[in-house]
Amino acid sequence: MTAATRSEHDLLGDRDVPAEAYWGVHTLRATENFPITGMPISAYPHLIDALAAVKEAAALANEELGLLDPKKAAAIVEACREIRDGKLHDQFVVDVVQGGAGTSTNMNANEVVANRALELLGHAKGEYGFLHPNEDVNLGQSTNDVYPTAVKIATVFAVRGLLDAMSVLQDTFAAKAVEFRDVLKMGRTQLQDAVPMTLGQEFSAYAVMLDEDRSRLAEAVQLIHEINLGATAIGTGLNAPAGYAESARRHLAAITGLPLVTAANLVEATQDCGAFVQMSGVLKRIAVKLSKSCNDLRLLSSGPRAGLGEINLPPVQAGSSIMPGKVNPVIPEVVNQVAFEVIGNDVTITMAAEAGQLQLNAFEPIILHSLSESITHLQSACLTLAERCVSGITANTEALRASVENSIGLVTALNPHIGYTAATDIAKEALATGRGVAELVLEKGLLPAGTLAALLRPEVLAGSGHIPA
Amino acid sequence: MTAATRSEHDLLGDRDVPAEAYWGVHTLRATENFPITGMPISAYPHLIDALAAVKEAAALANEELGLLDPKKAAAIVEACREIRDGKLHDQFVVDVVQGGAGTSTNMNANEVVANRALELLGHAKGEYGFLHPNEDVNLGQSTNDVYPTAVKIATVFAVRGLLDAMSVLQDTFAAKAVEFRDVLKMGRTQLQDAVPMTLGQEFSAYAVMLDEDRSRLAEAVQLIHEINLGATAIGTGLNAPAGYAESARRHLAAITGLPLVTAANLVEATQDCGAFVQMSGVLKRIAVKLSKSCNDLRLLSSGPRAGLGEINLPPVQAGSSIMPGKVNPVIPEVVNQVAFEVIGNDVTITMAAEAGQLQLNAFEPIILHSLSESITHLQSACLTLAERCVSGITANTEALRASVENSIGLVTALNPHIGYTAATDIAKEALATGRGVAELVLEKGLLPAGTLAALLRPEVLAGSGHIPA
Amino acid sequence: MTAATRSEHDLLGDRDVPAEAYWGVHTLRATENFPITGMPISAYPHLIDALAAVKEAAALANEELGLLDPKKAAAIVEACREIRDGKLHDQFVVDVVQGGAGTSTNMNANEVVANRALELLGHAKGEYGFLHPNEDVNLGQSTNDVYPTAVKIATVFAVRGLLDAMSVLQDTFAAKAVEFRDVLKMGRTQLQDAVPMTLGQEFSAYAVMLDEDRSRLAEAVQLIHEINLGATAIGTGLNAPAGYAESARRHLAAITGLPLVTAANLVEATQDCGAFVQMSGVLKRIAVKLSKSCNDLRLLSSGPRAGLGEINLPPVQAGSSIMPGKVNPVIPEVVNQVAFEVIGNDVTITMAAEAGQLQLNAFEPIILHSLSESITHLQSACLTLAERCVSGITANTEALRASVENSIGLVTALNPHIGYTAATDIAKEALATGRGVAELVLEKGLLPAGTLAALLRPEVLAGSGHIPA
Amino acid sequence: MTAATRSEHDLLGDRDVPAEAYWGVHTLRATENFPITGMPISAYPHLIDALAAVKEAAALANEELGLLDPKKAAAIVEACREIRDGKLHDQFVVDVVQGGAGTSTNMNANEVVANRALELLGHAKGEYGFLHPNEDVNLGQSTNDVYPTAVKIATVFAVRGLLDAMSVLQDTFAAKAVEFRDVLKMGRTQLQDAVPMTLGQEFSAYAVMLDEDRSRLAEAVQLIHEINLGATAIGTGLNAPAGYAESARRHLAAITGLPLVTAANLVEATQDCGAFVQMSGVLKRIAVKLSKSCNDLRLLSSGPRAGLGEINLPPVQAGSSIMPGKVNPVIPEVVNQVAFEVIGNDVTITMAAEAGQLQLNAFEPIILHSLSESITHLQSACLTLAERCVSGITANTEALRASVENSIGLVTALNPHIGYTAATDIAKEALATGRGVAELVLEKGLLPAGTLAALLRPEVLAGSGHIPA
Repeated sequence: MTAATRSEHDLLGDRDVPAEAYWGVHTLRATENFPITGMPISAYPHLIDALAAVKEAAALANEELGLLDPKKAAAIVEACREIRDGKLHDQFVVDVVQGGAGTSTNMNANEVVANRALELLGHAKGEYGFLHPNEDVNLGQSTNDVYPTAVKIATVFAVRGLLDAMSVLQDTFAAKAVEFRDVLKMGRTQLQDAVPMTLGQEFSAYAVMLDEDRSRLAEAVQLIHEINLGATAIGTGLNAPAGYAESARRHLAAITGLPLVTAANLVEATQDCGAFVQMSGVLKRIAVKLSKSCNDLRLLSSGPRAGLGEINLPPVQAGSSIMPGKVNPVIPEVVNQVAFEVIGNDVTITMAAEAGQLQLNAFEPIILHSLSESITHLQSACLTLAERCVSGITANTEALRASVENSIGLVTALNPHIGYTAATDIAKEALATGRGVAELVLEKGLLPAGTLAALLRPEVLAGSGHIPA
Repeated sequence: MTAATRSEHDLLGDRDVPAEAYWGVHTLRATENFPITGMPISAYPHLIDALAAVKEAAALANEELGLLDPKKAAAIVEACREIRDGKLHDQFVVDVVQGGAGTSTNMNANEVVANRALELLGHAKGEYGFLHPNEDVNLGQSTNDVYPTAVKIATVFAVRGLLDAMSVLQDTFAAKAVEFRDVLKMGRTQLQDAVPMTLGQEFSAYAVMLDEDRSRLAEAVQLIHEINLGATAIGTGLNAPAGYAESARRHLAAITGLPLVTAANLVEATQDCGAFVQMSGVLKRIAVKLSKSCNDLRLLSSGPRAGLGEINLPPVQAGSSIMPGKVNPVIPEVVNQVAFEVIGNDVTITMAAEAGQLQLNAFEPIILHSLSESITHLQSACLTLAERCVSGITANTEALRASVENSIGLVTALNPHIGYTAATDIAKEALATGRGVAELVLEKGLLPAGTLAALLRPEVLAGSGHIPA
Repeated sequence: MTAATRSEHDLLGDRDVPAEAYWGVHTLRATENFPITGMPISAYPHLIDALAAVKEAAALANEELGLLDPKKAAAIVEACREIRDGKLHDQFVVDVVQGGAGTSTNMNANEVVANRALELLGHAKGEYGFLHPNEDVNLGQSTNDVYPTAVKIATVFAVRGLLDAMSVLQDTFAAKAVEFRDVLKMGRTQLQDAVPMTLGQEFSAYAVMLDEDRSRLAEAVQLIHEINLGATAIGTGLNAPAGYAESARRHLAAITGLPLVTAANLVEATQDCGAFVQMSGVLKRIAVKLSKSCNDLRLLSSGPRAGLGEINLPPVQAGSSIMPGKVNPVIPEVVNQVAFEVIGNDVTITMAAEAGQLQLNAFEPIILHSLSESITHLQSACLTLAERCVSGITANTEALRASVENSIGLVTALNPHIGYTAATDIAKEALATGRGVAELVLEKGLLPAGTLAALLRPEVLAGSGHIPA
Repeated sequence: MTAATRSEHDLLGDRDVPAEAYWGVHTLRATENFPITGMPISAYPHLIDALAAVKEAAALANEELGLLDPKKAAAIVEACREIRDGKLHDQFVVDVVQGGAGTSTNMNANEVVANRALELLGHAKGEYGFLHPNEDVNLGQSTNDVYPTAVKIATVFAVRGLLDAMSVLQDTFAAKAVEFRDVLKMGRTQLQDAVPMTLGQEFSAYAVMLDEDRSRLAEAVQLIHEINLGATAIGTGLNAPAGYAESARRHLAAITGLPLVTAANLVEATQDCGAFVQMSGVLKRIAVKLSKSCNDLRLLSSGPRAGLGEINLPPVQAGSSIMPGKVNPVIPEVVNQVAFEVIGNDVTITMAAEAGQLQLNAFEPIILHSLSESITHLQSACLTLAERCVSGITANTEALRASVENSIGLVTALNPHIGYTAATDIAKEALATGRGVAELVLEKGLLPAGTLAALLRPEVLAGSGHIPA
């Protein structure tokens, strides 16, 4: 051992650890064992904060129950608070994709907290005789309750950001819905001209979709507030004394500000990944609808001359390295791709959840990784879409109105007055001759001019889109 | 036209239809256009019932608003009631996988109802001058509101069956949990021996999982009660008079006994498939956990001699065409396969939902098909698993107890008393020498015999699995 | 036992079987154990034929090796030939979704063959003392080699139908490519106007895609010709005498006309589902590209007035129950849905393949079911698309040419002559003013009129789409 | 503009770019538009090398055809070679997940190459009058041919690494197969004891699986050698002069050492993502089988006392923060998780491929991202599994042999000698009484002792697992 390293010991023997590292031998081995993505767990700061919160709550509970020396507890708490203040995150170095059900992540946290606490107590890093990563920092805990609890808290934190971003996007669509409320256009079903509506109604639907999805996400995140801290290894609570689970939960709720609940059946809670599957399912739902909305935006803005040309997306970059002046819907396109990623992640999470065996699911690290990626990428996608695309959309109002006046779909509005069969004949003739529905109806004397004009008023045609009174 | 056919007319011309058929020209063309699965929509009786309920409600609303002659309305209502009583289902012949956003299904319903109503009024089938499939049966409606509404009602009906089946399976697991409450065994994490628990705790977890999943399913089905009847073509309610949507909803709620709600924004509701995606996501969650439970049952019953051999599944058929006496876990295996199917269906539904464009999703037929398959197969799987497997499971109690006494995992319970480091040494020595943990602890004088015995009592080891007080 | 039943015996005891049934007690129990889909294995006639072929080949090999009495062998062979002629298929009654790794399917085959062979030998059904389902029909075999072998042969047969259907569709697209070879139109990238091409080039691409996919499918089906017959239970060939595997393979190849090969390592071959995963992956590839092509057809035919309106799909049914005269792209829509189903099935197959354990994959029945569904539905989809849609497509030639002349994308062709920067300015001005590219170039004196005209000739603009010489 | 920046101009106006940056205004806007993952494209060095190779080949072709000044060409070539030598990779800064079909990646490459070439020519960065990113570096190219071509070359490079890693793992399994060739054990089907085999046969199957998968991967990578360089915007080759495509392909083949082929139909090749879907499907196949193998390793090493305990995985880290001495199968677990990720990525790639529209697929960036992740993570997983797990596996030979001698499955070997029915009775009695098969057979006088002993010799029981002669 040189001056730059310290020696640490574990089940497998001795290893030198860099002297300045807050992590120790368990972390060292994990970094060697899992050279998969190159992305350390510090890439998910919410997870690091959540781990520190759990360790802090456990120390307070252990102190409260007389199991942990108050001085040790104070040092642990202080170390955790530093981490929650953003310090030492660079010491969380194990790969996001790892075997071992999160043990390496928990060990990494135990070691960093222990070594920082040792320093706060005036000892050197590695002097575990004074304060031990497993015997003190991990006291009364197991990876199998610490890790899922931390993952849940991290997820709750991350989802808040997504909810906010969805809200921004919803408001942006809603503002456009107001702006476009009088822009009459043809509605389409199955890509075929259907009946008239307003562009405001169209954009309002996107806002409403987001509102619904936010409600669903808020419901799903509620399920994540149920934790299994106190379960220890398999949910039987072995080595966790009476009162520990409740005390730790109370402290953790206070630290995080979250209404955490301990699961009623800890054996079940320790092996179950249902809440993560459900969360991912809701993220998939959000992705599906964002993608659908972006498909629509790309379609409505197709052109500029050989497309639908109904709306214009704000140009944000030159579109082509070869076609001058071309501007492409790059922002909706990137959102589509995030959606595809989220949908793929849902399959990954599903398989990982299904693969759990007996008292534990060993595959929670990939669940965490995929969930985090889905949440943070969706958040970026929503904000980008709102700020760099939807907020700058303009409408080609005149062309839209002309398409309604020129449409065959108008005839549907006459259905109750001239009948489905006569209306079908008018539609066929209009299509074959290129003539207008109104002129044909008048020519054939099917309706008086005044009645026809009344039936074709925009406000009648477009209705409200809300529940007809 | 021969005696055995009648001629009908549509947009494309005239076609002969079998004289005895209640369906007409639109249905005929659809059967020719969609020769995909060979499975008619009558394979989903809940859908046929739901279509009839919608047609009945619409007729009552139209009559109430003075739009439909009371005699016609009465005939339509009577025809619908016959269908809901199980009659004429064989007349619903279009393929479950069909283009056209469900139009062919709706047309099939309009034609069957119209022709039966014509008969009830004393007319011949096909005499649409007296009562017309589109102008009377479909009055004030569009496929785009009828079809999603019917699919939702059918789904609610189907889910009831699944909820009941899950309840049966949950009760079966719960009964076994009571039966096995005193059977001590080793718990396992990552397939490695962990710490003791009871077999009752293990089976209780399966029951609790089902209970949670039932709650989630019940929540998801609530979202399905929001309908868009009255939206007509694109949600603007064109051709649906004031009061129609509310009247139709009220009648439909009365007919079905369901607390149906009309969506606040009908444009959004008409294009949105979010509730189906969410429902499928919850079905996937159920599948994931059923599959995990079945994986466990197969693992725990592995053997009879070279496996874990903890439990015995009741033999339900000879297992092998070549290996005499072999009995296989065929019931859990078929449940696993249903789960894989449900997970695949979720991807199908996701893609179909994402592919919706502008004011409508044209791909709801495959959503209906996949959802129905997932629900009904899961229902069969739960019942089969309960009745042909779980209810007959027995435990190898003595072997299980011996495995605890012989285990190295016992040392975890001594952790708080001899420390993680000393416990690790004991574990290593036990593994290397094949000796027992207790004898090594005594030999090394780490704990007095009485203390050791107290720490290793079964009720201490297994805990309760419920929130530690 | 009444006159209408006979009694049979198995591991679990005695059961009455309908006297007229060719299937026996094992099949009876399986039908009770797997009430999942209601679809019997006879729904896949290729599988029944393949099972009969395997049983026939095994009997011939057993006779050849002196293990089976020639009279018994002759009766078994005759029974199998009857089945391959289409008889007795209704006796294959176990559910397509079943536990037991296909054992019930194999048992069903053993029983039907045995009972028919007994009749041919002058005995009554059930008189297994004269010829036994397991000891004679299944002699030298195990479900674990019979079932995968039969599934592979059935898949080869099914894929032939799909290859033919793809060929029909390819030819139909290719014929349209010739028909539309001179129809100039705007090409689009990212839904934005790009540069000119011909409609023939566009349709040619669809034909080429199918040609490539056929090549890939033909390659994937080659992998399916490797069988494991002779492996018996786990690939060690226990109970299969020397020469059996080779003899059985030779007979099976002769019977089926397929160049079958016995796997070099039978232990591996017995547990491996890689060839099925690969086959499904190729089916998914086909689905992806069919769906993409159908998306394009729907987009290009959007309108009739407020869409792209480039092509017209032949109307095959009335499109709407409310909108008179509306015709929808229902054929492409149904193809899209089949594609979504195939993609979902691929996930199901993937999960089933991954779930195999140790020496066997118990989940091959769902793999067979999903593969069969994907293949046969794709076949129907291709034929329907060819015959009811693509063959009748017409082009709106004049409008397409006008869109090219009116386009801003023309400026790309001038890039090498006036530079990307100048071309960008022209494009911007054209977009802002609504004026044409050509007139702006002339007005600014960037190119002489003659040069400009030469650059904008259609054959120059559209190129060939083939490798530039 | 300060000393530290330079001003650049594009379609949207002027922007300041850091003076030292080799990238320019297009890259700047892209980094602002796509703040999605935070991972720059330099994370995929093979892609950067491939882009440089394409730009180099294009410059050489342009020079050869007299379209590009030789001095400019030389500078471009030199800049590209520097990049291929690993320089300037940090200048490739756009996000891996981006809209625009790869335009931003291509623009980033154009700008970096141009600015480095400008320096080599003695000019300052940004002096595009001397050498222009679009007009010179991108001459005769479009993102739509450059990007897919570069992605394909990058994929070929990456797959080489995976093939090597699979080869290492295959060899490691094969070496263990030799080591364990005489270790007799029970084979299992459906987790139930089946018939004897050797551990060597079991490990040999894992090696053979990898060998097969390597063959499939090598085939799939062949399809990736077909490029569309010369297609320009949509495949019509607009602006690419005669001879350009062939010349560029020839140079690119020479630069990369790859047998590249230009697609016969460039319109098709430009829009088609089939080869990527197929590649991902093969990666999924590899993932499925790796995951299955790892599931087996975890199962066979379960214990140490309450599991199957057949083999021992080498301990690579302490397994638990609470359970002393526990060692977990963390390496197989991390491989399982990579497999789940690859399977999820396949869904992402499938959706992205399906979403292509008309003449281009705009979603290739997520295809590249997902493919790259799958390939590189699988490579790491294979190496880690080989080096940190499989190479150190040991067998519990005595226990394995005992399990064979004690097994009921032995009776299968007696099947041909005592009949399936008698063998079934022996098996039932052995199971019920706990006695051995051999003693029961002798006791009942079913076989003479010598015959019995001969039938139960290990080499007879285990066979060879290869094609029986």
